[in-house]
Amino acid sequence: MNRGRVREFGLCIGRLAPGPLNAITDVPGVLVGQTTLIRDRPEVVRTGCTVIAPCEGRMWDRNLFAGFFAFNGFGEVTGAQWIEEAGVLSSPIALVGTTAVGTAHRALQQLALDSGLSLASCFPVILETADTWLNPLAVSALSSLDVYQALSSAASGPVAEGNVGGGTGMMCYEFKGGIGTSSRIVAYGEANYTVGALVQSNHGKRHQLRISGLPVKEVQGVPLPWEEQVQQGSIVVIIATDAPLLPVQLKRLAKRATVGLARTGGIGENGSGDFFLAFSTANEIPLGTTETQSVRMLPHDGLNALFEGVADAVEEAILNSLTQAETMTGVEGRTVYALPTAALQATLR
Amino acid sequence: MNRGRVREFGLCIGRLAPGPLNAITDVPGVLVGQTTLIRDRPEVVRTGCTVIAPCEGRMWDRNLFAGFFAFNGFGEVTGAQWIEEAGVLSSPIALVGTTAVGTAHRALQQLALDSGLSLASCFPVILETADTWLNPLAVSALSSLDVYQALSSAASGPVAEGNVGGGTGMMCYEFKGGIGTSSRIVAYGEANYTVGALVQSNHGKRHQLRISGLPVKEVQGVPLPWEEQVQQGSIVVIIATDAPLLPVQLKRLAKRATVGLARTGGIGENGSGDFFLAFSTANEIPLGTTETQSVRMLPHDGLNALFEGVADAVEEAILNSLTQAETMTGVEGRTVYALPTAALQATLR
Amino acid sequence: MNRGRVREFGLCIGRLAPGPLNAITDVPGVLVGQTTLIRDRPEVVRTGCTVIAPCEGRMWDRNLFAGFFAFNGFGEVTGAQWIEEAGVLSSPIALVGTTAVGTAHRALQQLALDSGLSLASCFPVILETADTWLNPLAVSALSSLDVYQALSSAASGPVAEGNVGGGTGMMCYEFKGGIGTSSRIVAYGEANYTVGALVQSNHGKRHQLRISGLPVKEVQGVPLPWEEQVQQGSIVVIIATDAPLLPVQLKRLAKRATVGLARTGGIGENGSGDFFLAFSTANEIPLGTTETQSVRMLPHDGLNALFEGVADAVEEAILNSLTQAETMTGVEGRTVYALPTAALQATLR
Amino acid sequence: MNRGRVREFGLCIGRLAPGPLNAITDVPGVLVGQTTLIRDRPEVVRTGCTVIAPCEGRMWDRNLFAGFFAFNGFGEVTGAQWIEEAGVLSSPIALVGTTAVGTAHRALQQLALDSGLSLASCFPVILETADTWLNPLAVSALSSLDVYQALSSAASGPVAEGNVGGGTGMMCYEFKGGIGTSSRIVAYGEANYTVGALVQSNHGKRHQLRISGLPVKEVQGVPLPWEEQVQQGSIVVIIATDAPLLPVQLKRLAKRATVGLARTGGIGENGSGDFFLAFSTANEIPLGTTETQSVRMLPHDGLNALFEGVADAVEEAILNSLTQAETMTGVEGRTVYALPTAALQATLR
Repeated sequence: MNRGRVREFGLCIGRLAPGPLNAITDVPGVLVGQTTLIRDRPEVVRTGCTVIAPCEGRMWDRNLFAGFFAFNGFGEVTGAQWIEEAGVLSSPIALVGTTAVGTAHRALQQLALDSGLSLASCFPVILETADTWLNPLAVSALSSLDVYQALSSAASGPVAEGNVGGGTGMMCYEFKGGIGTSSRIVAYGEANYTVGALVQSNHGKRHQLRISGLPVKEVQGVPLPWEEQVQQGSIVVIIATDAPLLPVQLKRLAKRATVGLARTGGIGENGSGDFFLAFSTANEIPLGTTETQSVRMLPHDGLNALFEGVADAVEEAILNSLTQAETMTGVEGRTVYALPTAALQATLR
Repeated sequence: MNRGRVREFGLCIGRLAPGPLNAITDVPGVLVGQTTLIRDRPEVVRTGCTVIAPCEGRMWDRNLFAGFFAFNGFGEVTGAQWIEEAGVLSSPIALVGTTAVGTAHRALQQLALDSGLSLASCFPVILETADTWLNPLAVSALSSLDVYQALSSAASGPVAEGNVGGGTGMMCYEFKGGIGTSSRIVAYGEANYTVGALVQSNHGKRHQLRISGLPVKEVQGVPLPWEEQVQQGSIVVIIATDAPLLPVQLKRLAKRATVGLARTGGIGENGSGDFFLAFSTANEIPLGTTETQSVRMLPHDGLNALFEGVADAVEEAILNSLTQAETMTGVEGRTVYALPTAALQATLR
Repeated sequence: MNRGRVREFGLCIGRLAPGPLNAITDVPGVLVGQTTLIRDRPEVVRTGCTVIAPCEGRMWDRNLFAGFFAFNGFGEVTGAQWIEEAGVLSSPIALVGTTAVGTAHRALQQLALDSGLSLASCFPVILETADTWLNPLAVSALSSLDVYQALSSAASGPVAEGNVGGGTGMMCYEFKGGIGTSSRIVAYGEANYTVGALVQSNHGKRHQLRISGLPVKEVQGVPLPWEEQVQQGSIVVIIATDAPLLPVQLKRLAKRATVGLARTGGIGENGSGDFFLAFSTANEIPLGTTETQSVRMLPHDGLNALFEGVADAVEEAILNSLTQAETMTGVEGRTVYALPTAALQATLR
Repeated sequence: MNRGRVREFGLCIGRLAPGPLNAITDVPGVLVGQTTLIRDRPEVVRTGCTVIAPCEGRMWDRNLFAGFFAFNGFGEVTGAQWIEEAGVLSSPIALVGTTAVGTAHRALQQLALDSGLSLASCFPVILETADTWLNPLAVSALSSLDVYQALSSAASGPVAEGNVGGGTGMMCYEFKGGIGTSSRIVAYGEANYTVGALVQSNHGKRHQLRISGLPVKEVQGVPLPWEEQVQQGSIVVIIATDAPLLPVQLKRLAKRATVGLARTGGIGENGSGDFFLAFSTANEIPLGTTETQSVRMLPHDGLNALFEGVADAVEEAILNSLTQAETMTGVEGRTVYALPTAALQATLR
């Protein structure tokens, strides 16, 4: 086996069991859609868009509780002000390359308006990392149609990882990175809740990488993507859960993505936009309602297992983005190498 | 009439009606208790403690949702970290002079322990402003017993204003200030909610003061408390409501105290600790529960009238603290003059 | 005189003198450029773009210290994460209508890249308010070229107010609003510093409006823009100064815009995106430098006069946006009426 | 060797060299003083106070830049509001047990007043973790004199670790914990800067502990301190550096303590007060100055090595607190066992 998920190589992170798909789509109603643009003519393109669509994609007529945390704010994220102010998510979430932020923002805004919303009802949430090493810098090939396509194809089921969607042109710890996902089942009283993470990884230096706490072995022969590091990358993390949590609690979950990131070696470098967004599908607030809402929440004391699930799922999702991504050559003949399977196995032994 | 509330002088702030007492105690279950220490021997003392005790004082076995905002963080407030993190109030609230923070913190902590709580269940909330112009600087005369006394005497009903409790030695816009309170009734659908404010005012310069938008007239003859301003003071505001609000919403309410403060002339001077704390009595979370809680919330769209109520009640509470406080002479013979009734009436004409 | 600035009508806000232009351009090096799109064919357009360009427009090779405050986060602002994280402004600032955020973000990003920057060196700062009552909702007529045009025309000197630039289609307290500006000179020791404010006003209800602390008189005959309010609008405020301030101090300045807003009647309604951004031109950090920088700062104690200047300049800028804007009819024949001069004069008497 | 520092057992964390003492006191001018109270009569006492005093202890006439981050806000910290608002530290820092917060706050406040300060010039910074398993719950034996003693004995040189000062009665990952420290030298251009960390560790569950990325081995025979976990503990981290950093940068350093904590197994449990405070000795702001200050700062791009130093020093300081602490029996005969040397060695092999 050349590429695969870390679990297929025998690595299990933490004590909690993953969901059936070990993916963010284990959270009921959470869909993922991806558009991947890889072509060499007329120009080299290595980019794409990953959309996370809660509530089976029906986000235009309801809000979900959400919380946001910036571990390092070197990057762009739209929609964050209203999440911070009101604690609600009012839009699907799109992950793109840095130069596609404007396009993706406009695309989701347009979809909301087409759905009959007033502007005051939707703040599109776009997060980005820079694919400007493999993909051309100056202009993004991503169009509004590509964003619509990602959203309209959003589905439950397994999630493609590695060089797909928004992660197409990304690198992680100076290996090829991109999209990764994982999930955990958390027992609470008689209930089982699922917490899922999806990352777009594009951060870190090779010497920082830790797999299961250990530095990665036998990678001396794998060329670095550059002679001298030219960017520091970023990582964005989306956390979904069906546990009934308030905004203030979801912010706490988002913060715990820091732990998963740190376990893989991340330190939040200056030039890394490390943004974490958590939402819960348990309480839906109908748009435009004037009625007092009854919502459910776990007591704060009940959050420890969810914190653990977030840390573990984020750690595993980052590793999956590495072990699923394949070596890619992009613009100007630049090559970013995949983490070799042999190195992974040597490290785990 | 020499002293009185601004409404007694004919000034009505805003469109909304106040509650029956026009006080924070109009919010059902919210009690206020005050200890006032005024004596000249063996040493001059002009200080005290005001306690706001929600839930009829039974705070040791439950949490309420709360939100906090620092308009200007020049001051001390204990318990704020957990309110920010978890959005809950776990303690009665004590307002004191600056040098009594440690004493009051210890007193409430001790009461919680005496009630059988573990330390992990209570974060005493103490806010302070400096009464060090009229009261001796070096040591506070306030004892633990005085704090217990304020709490045990906490009651519903009218709230004494001016030179009482934590406000005993305070000044406001270089007139005598102290405790002030006000409330508003806010209709929502078929429900009526109450929002109440209580302030401990100790901020501002005389030229800044605005009453109903106008600079105060005919006060040229009233001496300033000092030849040269030696401190910039502070204001702390407590907002209570029975409207069902989440922590993220109560933080929004707390922020609106800025509007009421600004209308009276406040600009949040550098040396002013302007702290605003809002809580809701609508949802009680039992301490130590492991059960999923069902809580109620108004939709965000429904908050505008509450925002208006907060701004109006805070403005009126500040003015009440001025029109109720009486001229006081304190340590070293220093005198702080009350806002003259005649000046108020001249301004309102 | 029909339209004019409030000072021309005899209203002087506060104690401090304005700069020679009474505009944000009184701060040396701060340029303002505006593109105004008003046409009726082939479709109705009432929109535009206002750009604030510090350092004579040379922002691509340097950073300025900056601070950001969201009084109410119902809106979009790009670039805010890096300002919060690092305290620096790395881009000109563009004010637009809500549906032009994506376009303006892309336009400034492209300009930065064209200037030879890596993506990691510029976070375009776009703020918006919704012109969707007078301007068509579904799509913005604003193009990248319009943004370039605003930036390339940016100049020192007087700033057009009212129905111009990003403010073209805006309304304020249910009168016609838009762009307004003002400035103050603040003495500090032997130095004089300038603080300037520019607002794009689009917020509030008519009954809330206060001019110099008083409700506005004799406007009963002026029709409201709608039978029933359909949006709550927003206000964005840019504050510039040449006073040497650190990021943490500029955040404090930004917060004081709340005071100016509150004095005109604003309460930060739920559906209002009230974002305040302050920057200082005093310290320029060269992009890509590896050298230890020596920067200047005023002591915190010295900020009170600047706080006062911010509050006064923001108040006056909002009023200028009202008294300069002219009645406008837009899409579907909707008309938003200007604040009548006679009403202003009646109120001031 | 039974007890010792992890380096003595052959474990070196990270790539950077520690300072000569591998302690926070490697930062020039940073002193540490500790009072340790261990007695069995007339009542069992296991508590104390650790004071970190920058500037050779002369803090009453100057401010240092500082930044604060709460990874999990379940705890008390005084002085945080002014650090957040103004970015300055105005006091020595005291670490104590939870019930001694009031006492320590009052003690430092009194010292400031005795030094001739006005109250408006000093916000004592007290951080706490709960020693209520080994030390009696109801009342702290710590007196003001004990705090004075800790401060007056503050010195440069090696720092005692384990069961000393504020760490006397603490536990960490269900082993005996307490005070730990470490430092790193960070090269920047031609300069070398020192970053030092001191922790008071009292957090975590045994299964979470990771040493150098690995779960700790061969500790099955070591009894847990309790049959059922009764508290979740906390960890407070103080970071000192002589690198010239602005407040906004010191907050970024404080955040990176999360990485060091996560590497040892911490996830920020609900009931854990995880507070991180960073200050720089490079810029001293004289108290009461009215002069414009010239201060130095590293460019943000230069922070990565400091981030790495913080993460490494915090990780090592936590481990030092474990390997230096000795088994302790406290109130009601409760025993908390030290991490066995053999287990450490088995894990490292």
